[in-house]
Amino acid sequence: MTTSRPAVARRSATIATIAEEVGVSAATVSKVLNGHPDVARETRARVEDSLERHRYRRRAKRQPAETAQLHLVFHEWDSVWAMEIMRGVEAVAATAKVDLVLSQLGGRHRPSEEWLNGVLGRRPVGVLFVLCGLTQAQQQKLRRRHIPFVVVDQDSATSASVPTVGSNNWDGGLLATRHLVELGHRRIAVISGPQDVLCSRARVAGFQFAHDEAGLTVDPGLVRYGNFQVDAGYEHGMELLTRADRPTAIFAGSDMQAMGVLRAARRLGLDVPGDLSVIGYDNLPVAAWIDPALTTVNQPLRDMAGIAAQMLLDLSRGVDLATSRIDLVNELVVRESTAPPG
Amino acid sequence: MTTSRPAVARRSATIATIAEEVGVSAATVSKVLNGHPDVARETRARVEDSLERHRYRRRAKRQPAETAQLHLVFHEWDSVWAMEIMRGVEAVAATAKVDLVLSQLGGRHRPSEEWLNGVLGRRPVGVLFVLCGLTQAQQQKLRRRHIPFVVVDQDSATSASVPTVGSNNWDGGLLATRHLVELGHRRIAVISGPQDVLCSRARVAGFQFAHDEAGLTVDPGLVRYGNFQVDAGYEHGMELLTRADRPTAIFAGSDMQAMGVLRAARRLGLDVPGDLSVIGYDNLPVAAWIDPALTTVNQPLRDMAGIAAQMLLDLSRGVDLATSRIDLVNELVVRESTAPPG
Repeated sequence: MTTSRPAVARRSATIATIAEEVGVSAATVSKVLNGHPDVARETRARVEDSLERHRYRRRAKRQPAETAQLHLVFHEWDSVWAMEIMRGVEAVAATAKVDLVLSQLGGRHRPSEEWLNGVLGRRPVGVLFVLCGLTQAQQQKLRRRHIPFVVVDQDSATSASVPTVGSNNWDGGLLATRHLVELGHRRIAVISGPQDVLCSRARVAGFQFAHDEAGLTVDPGLVRYGNFQVDAGYEHGMELLTRADRPTAIFAGSDMQAMGVLRAARRLGLDVPGDLSVIGYDNLPVAAWIDPALTTVNQPLRDMAGIAAQMLLDLSRGVDLATSRIDLVNELVVRESTAPPG
Repeated sequence: MTTSRPAVARRSATIATIAEEVGVSAATVSKVLNGHPDVARETRARVEDSLERHRYRRRAKRQPAETAQLHLVFHEWDSVWAMEIMRGVEAVAATAKVDLVLSQLGGRHRPSEEWLNGVLGRRPVGVLFVLCGLTQAQQQKLRRRHIPFVVVDQDSATSASVPTVGSNNWDGGLLATRHLVELGHRRIAVISGPQDVLCSRARVAGFQFAHDEAGLTVDPGLVRYGNFQVDAGYEHGMELLTRADRPTAIFAGSDMQAMGVLRAARRLGLDVPGDLSVIGYDNLPVAAWIDPALTTVNQPLRDMAGIAAQMLLDLSRGVDLATSRIDLVNELVVRESTAPPG
């Protein structure tokens, strides 16, 4: 009997097969496949189980061009950072004449089942997740419906089989810290993003590596994690800069955080870059306008988003991707906020 | 014979009537109604004429909830300004479980026919235009398909029959200028938005009024128009501040422009607010973070967008709007960038 399962799995199950096995109507199986909400939770679970056991795969159905949708899903719209991603995706979607459907998860890193069922019902050409992702079971659901998905700026929970576009955060941390070390700084603080997000820890690892290669020791009290917003930069900045042994340089996790650090320095009467060097991350437009103009790590956000959108369109057309896990290279942009220690 | 036309118009024409009159198939009429692209331009024009003559109105068809779309169309995504609008619309769309479909016209103020035909084919619950609008003929097309539309921050070309949500720009110009006059400024410059946009001229009119009521004369050389971006603020700022009789205060058309003015002042070694007072417009988050924190006119962008989205949803359900042309009230937010003249 142990051989019968694989044999069944290899045969192509039909909706009728599944319906018969579960003891429901074909319409009910169809509803589950299309993400309709009006199926009892327990019935849905049994149908999903059967679909899974049979490795049921719906035949990919070409959508009429006028309703093709690309879903762009953000963890949160928290700054102009999100706008840069949108611009990159919109340019690709507009060229392909695909509707760009926008949503955000209000700060959660995984969509709800209700949200996901809604997407299944809409049958988009693909879903692009930004700073959020899917559980294994959610991934299975999309795969079974032939709905491709790509993750931009993945976090640590993204499995190797998921196409991703990011940037090399370790390199970013290294570049920024090396710049400060080369300027002569020895007490350097880092404020990274949330500690549960891989990119935050990767940047701190690059920061550590730059110290190691210069024979310097990192003071653990100078390593901070927070959200990517202005307030986190301000609060950590105030704490760090009111220490007796305050750092002479702070490497922030985002340009927004760096603006918070600049604000803290002003409140404390510290001159940037005379008394304190500050480096941001992202290179948002604002980094070039503020005073002092911000030295920052350029993340090619529009390019990342555009490449991810193109990957989705390719996947939806059945094109095999040459590579599906890409990190773009970051660059340090030196402006006015960094200088040798005073 | 002159009475027959109205009589025909009052009867409810069917697709068959239209098809017979034009001498095409019912399918062709249907394609025109649905915005399909594969109808010859000349045939489309004849069908549109006939629909118009018969005042054909498609019976409003309730969309299945899972595909309901709200289209949000921007003139351009030029700053975090657009993000504030998106946030307001998204909150309403998410609550109503309506997909938010995003597009931008790349700087044009009227959509192309191709774009509009695409929207007709999608039959959204409504279309929200931001800083852009429709020709009369385009408005007719949407009305005939029972697709409601609302304009946010309308420009001068929006006719009185179009529902709009904006803010009182004349008041905004008055509030900002009064504040400067009360501080003691007598040479005040204004950099407004593009001169062909009504809101820009309305603000200058408010600026003029504040002068009039204080018995002050406006120097025409101090009245400027430009785009809403940093560069316009920088360029006009440089010109204004290098005059022998430079102004002691500048009222900018946006917070972005104000940042450009601050940049120009720094380049010229002028202290803000010691040597120059600066007022922005919009009250974007960045206005509170920069140094000096910006005195600015708060435009309730999220509220404006949310109200406009709710109007669309109401219109799509056949609800009569209590009022369909709304201006929200602006407020002056006084921060650090304004002071009495030095």
